[in-house]
Amino acid sequence: MRKFSLPLIAALLALAGPALAQDAAGAEAAAAAISPDVVYIFNTLLFLIGGFLVMWMAAGFAMLEAGLVRSKNVTTQLFKNISLFSIAGLMYWLVGYNLMYPVDGWTIPGVVGQLFSPKAIDPAGAGNAADGYSAGSDFFFQLMFCATTASIVSGTLAERIKLWPFMIFTVILTGFIYPIEASWEWGAGWLDARGFSDFAGSTLVHATGGFAALAGAIVLGARHGKYRADGRMQPMPGSNLALATLGTFILWLGWFGFNGASQLALGSVNDAADVGRIFVNTNMAASAGAIAAIITTQLMYGKIDLTMVLNGALAGLVAITAEPLMPSILGAVLIGGVGGAIAVLVVPMLDRWKIDDVVGAIPVHLVAGVWGTMIVPASNPDASYSVQALGVIAIGGFVFIVSYALWLVLKATMGIRVSQEAEITGLDISEMGMEAYPDFVIAK
Amino acid sequence: MRKFSLPLIAALLALAGPALAQDAAGAEAAAAAISPDVVYIFNTLLFLIGGFLVMWMAAGFAMLEAGLVRSKNVTTQLFKNISLFSIAGLMYWLVGYNLMYPVDGWTIPGVVGQLFSPKAIDPAGAGNAADGYSAGSDFFFQLMFCATTASIVSGTLAERIKLWPFMIFTVILTGFIYPIEASWEWGAGWLDARGFSDFAGSTLVHATGGFAALAGAIVLGARHGKYRADGRMQPMPGSNLALATLGTFILWLGWFGFNGASQLALGSVNDAADVGRIFVNTNMAASAGAIAAIITTQLMYGKIDLTMVLNGALAGLVAITAEPLMPSILGAVLIGGVGGAIAVLVVPMLDRWKIDDVVGAIPVHLVAGVWGTMIVPASNPDASYSVQALGVIAIGGFVFIVSYALWLVLKATMGIRVSQEAEITGLDISEMGMEAYPDFVIAK
Amino acid sequence: MRKFSLPLIAALLALAGPALAQDAAGAEAAAAAISPDVVYIFNTLLFLIGGFLVMWMAAGFAMLEAGLVRSKNVTTQLFKNISLFSIAGLMYWLVGYNLMYPVDGWTIPGVVGQLFSPKAIDPAGAGNAADGYSAGSDFFFQLMFCATTASIVSGTLAERIKLWPFMIFTVILTGFIYPIEASWEWGAGWLDARGFSDFAGSTLVHATGGFAALAGAIVLGARHGKYRADGRMQPMPGSNLALATLGTFILWLGWFGFNGASQLALGSVNDAADVGRIFVNTNMAASAGAIAAIITTQLMYGKIDLTMVLNGALAGLVAITAEPLMPSILGAVLIGGVGGAIAVLVVPMLDRWKIDDVVGAIPVHLVAGVWGTMIVPASNPDASYSVQALGVIAIGGFVFIVSYALWLVLKATMGIRVSQEAEITGLDISEMGMEAYPDFVIAK
Repeated sequence: MRKFSLPLIAALLALAGPALAQDAAGAEAAAAAISPDVVYIFNTLLFLIGGFLVMWMAAGFAMLEAGLVRSKNVTTQLFKNISLFSIAGLMYWLVGYNLMYPVDGWTIPGVVGQLFSPKAIDPAGAGNAADGYSAGSDFFFQLMFCATTASIVSGTLAERIKLWPFMIFTVILTGFIYPIEASWEWGAGWLDARGFSDFAGSTLVHATGGFAALAGAIVLGARHGKYRADGRMQPMPGSNLALATLGTFILWLGWFGFNGASQLALGSVNDAADVGRIFVNTNMAASAGAIAAIITTQLMYGKIDLTMVLNGALAGLVAITAEPLMPSILGAVLIGGVGGAIAVLVVPMLDRWKIDDVVGAIPVHLVAGVWGTMIVPASNPDASYSVQALGVIAIGGFVFIVSYALWLVLKATMGIRVSQEAEITGLDISEMGMEAYPDFVIAK
Repeated sequence: MRKFSLPLIAALLALAGPALAQDAAGAEAAAAAISPDVVYIFNTLLFLIGGFLVMWMAAGFAMLEAGLVRSKNVTTQLFKNISLFSIAGLMYWLVGYNLMYPVDGWTIPGVVGQLFSPKAIDPAGAGNAADGYSAGSDFFFQLMFCATTASIVSGTLAERIKLWPFMIFTVILTGFIYPIEASWEWGAGWLDARGFSDFAGSTLVHATGGFAALAGAIVLGARHGKYRADGRMQPMPGSNLALATLGTFILWLGWFGFNGASQLALGSVNDAADVGRIFVNTNMAASAGAIAAIITTQLMYGKIDLTMVLNGALAGLVAITAEPLMPSILGAVLIGGVGGAIAVLVVPMLDRWKIDDVVGAIPVHLVAGVWGTMIVPASNPDASYSVQALGVIAIGGFVFIVSYALWLVLKATMGIRVSQEAEITGLDISEMGMEAYPDFVIAK
Repeated sequence: MRKFSLPLIAALLALAGPALAQDAAGAEAAAAAISPDVVYIFNTLLFLIGGFLVMWMAAGFAMLEAGLVRSKNVTTQLFKNISLFSIAGLMYWLVGYNLMYPVDGWTIPGVVGQLFSPKAIDPAGAGNAADGYSAGSDFFFQLMFCATTASIVSGTLAERIKLWPFMIFTVILTGFIYPIEASWEWGAGWLDARGFSDFAGSTLVHATGGFAALAGAIVLGARHGKYRADGRMQPMPGSNLALATLGTFILWLGWFGFNGASQLALGSVNDAADVGRIFVNTNMAASAGAIAAIITTQLMYGKIDLTMVLNGALAGLVAITAEPLMPSILGAVLIGGVGGAIAVLVVPMLDRWKIDDVVGAIPVHLVAGVWGTMIVPASNPDASYSVQALGVIAIGGFVFIVSYALWLVLKATMGIRVSQEAEITGLDISEMGMEAYPDFVIAK
């Protein structure tokens, strides 16, 4: 970290020199336009800030899930979250990024040829202003979306899934499933050509994670004792609502990066104004989602359920993600509010079908994600309801079917579910041999 | 945080003017000056970064308060924090922002006319370099200050207040009380005209929250059993000091956005240097506040009290907030250090008056906030002690009286306090029917 | 999030257009060069963002350590973390910064003369574009590295050290030991002149903290009962793995500031590209470290140990810190992966020597830090293995010997270790009189 000074002085001299023979109009234009170098730096900075905010969402999912599972499964849930984030990093580099943004189109040699060296991220690649942004910053930002998709899955399947099949599923999801479906839109693929619109990934990220989770939940089955013989449901409350709330706040914060940096540019006045509007709409949708969930739970159950409020805020965030730029603030409030209400209303439906979603990821990420995607045409005239439906069906179908098949294969080969005994004991002891809160006396 | 616009217009003119008949020196100036577009982007970026850091403070308050209440009230405290933040978002949009920065002055049609469309945040509003910053980014940043004010109130009143009256109070506070008093200074109102100086809100935000909390604590009364008949005080220690410490670190981090982005500009070398100085002074005041609290508690009680150290750091932060730019580092250390000591010393005074402040928000936000405001003239020659006192008295009086009246009305109509039975059981069961740590065995 | 490129090319053309009537070459240069003012702002912004991210690492250490100690020592560990961070702030200002970057060389009057006014941070100092960045932002950023060094020490010595000697050691470490050794490289000192290379401080920060901790662990001795008479080791599991995982995620996030902003410049396309590459390599090394630890613990122990995975990720981060820019992604994966494996492998070695490192800071920060420093020449042709070894030996020797002597002095004078009784009771009661989780029933 040595101090620098000479390059700056050199830059000063370089500027002063040519200006001496400039004419008036030229100087004015030069002063007003933003240099491509500066644009490059702003864009790169947006990716980096957005990227670290989305990276932080990995901690949010970890805390949310650790808080919503029972204490006997906390260590396992924490492990799954940090390992899936690590796996996502490696797989998106090894395969995913090149699969998602194919340079030579969809040729195998093209994809394989890029392995280990996504474009200009390698050391030889100095920055080039004409690129518009640094390849490394883009890779970093895109990777975090891939990791988010995987994070969504882990909560739904908590408290009964084996460690290793979950990790293998994550390998396939982050290396192949996510990059393939995301490339249909963001890799300039066929859905993009049809005019599908999903600004920051209500469907491409959130519903995708939700569909993968749904497939897993069906193949895996509900937790032992969750749906009782008498038709009633056994409550299995989360062990630490402080952590769950912390996780929600972390996700809320990270979402400003998720949606804001999906503008992909900060190098012009309009881009900066757009990012500002996106921040506002994102926050408004979350607030409205939380308030809607408060009202909905009060009306439905006669009391306020904190975990529903947390999920309401998250569902508001998921819903606005498909189009955080075009809606007015009132629009964002409505989109987020409906999302929050949906998240509450879907929970009993899932329970009726005995789909056991431990943290509520399916209502929040899948259902609110589909809602957000389908409502895009209401504010964005370039989108159409039919194409939005097409995108949701295509991506949902692809992700669900592939995930379902993969879960079945894993089930048939190595097994995906711990024994009933191990489940009752808790995965922390049975799978990891390590309690999360060993000093504390736990109620039976 | 006054709005700027004239300097930008001046800068634009300075750029355009000389260019028309430019000679060599003129061209050099044009090359050196920063384009208004770039200034706009930097300013907007400052608001966005500052805004997300201040948003993160909402999580800090949630963790601090969840850690400082007893385990039987944790769910309720978490709920209050996420709901107040959501309410603040909606109310500041519906009413507050337009009330705080009235476009047509204080006319009802002007205010109503702006409802649902604060200035240029609506989709039609493309960015305009002459504005100096994006309206959305400004709204986002200002909103977070409004939400912070509400966060301060919730801790003081913990463990005995009913949910719904608290939420109604938050609606009024974020929609009306805060915006009105803040507009006196930041909305170019009468205190601003008199020369009152409160850079980032020691009084406008922190003491305001503190006065609202104080009024509530008086009307609400102390927790059952807190002040015993024999004149001694029953300790009611916080249930999770790890969360309380986490909350303090979150607030410390968020404060760099709170104070730093209150510079309101990053588009010039001087502004960037100022933001750098603000970061340094902010950190120094917090460090000094913590150290002062360590020394004070060691001297007063013969031992170090962690919660006092946390509050000492926060009080140092509150104290420097009124003027984080002008003091030397030594000055910042002294301002923060005195703030930290004050926070410790005021606690027994409140107890003598039987004002039961569960988390210490009154010493930290009100008393240290007043201290910080009153010491501004020591480093800022544009401020005067008499006007600072006027501002504190006017804002404090207004906020306290209106809040007090509002708490009385709520008390008379719906009641603000849970039954003694419910309080002993804990609000989590009695008000929400949901424990924060259901798996853990709690000591009676 | 589709990639953009056409708008940029258009912008380029728009810029080039008017220039055609100008002295073409000159105007193009003027458009391409970035004004020194803008460079100044970008560099300052990098320091500020990097600085607040590294500040956040203080919370990460606090949570990691609070989670890895037993519940009876949590309050004390939290206190040590917030007090060391506060002490670092004051000492680095009073002494450290001037010692590390001596203006007049190493003369006592020069150092003393700068006390209380590190260069241009005082209020009189307006920004000066020729400086290249704001002095305040630099001070802020550098301070956080000093604080990080101190944070590393506290975990190793947990559960048996007295409060006040720890705080005195922190005063010396942050005011003198760290600044002196760091100035050898970053203060343009003799190691820098020899060509030593440590980009963001694998040795200068992390191994330094580790050597100070190692000296302390040796002088202090192991916790009572840790190494049993029968030669076996008594497990003393951490009390809250959720907090430990949270702390790891916080550190992972903060590391993007730690390494990324150590580029020290963001004001050119190449610098921005470099920062992007650093973010990628930093993330990849952490991911690889975690995965390597998963594999290593599975092979060594037949099960996955979550705390080892957390330490694996951190060791990967420490290892890449010496050179996060030059390696290819594959290189970063290998450097981080080896770091993660090392962290696991070193633990039993330390136990064989009865060096009781409560949180594993020595494997993570010292050993992986040395590994990262020694492997720099593999990717950076300007570095040599012999000079890297020289640097490690010189810094390690200096820090270890001075720390060891200081711990001995503290032991001889005031004593550094609590009584065996106090240790068994736990420091929270014996040293602070304050439990971290007073409501919870703790298993004996």
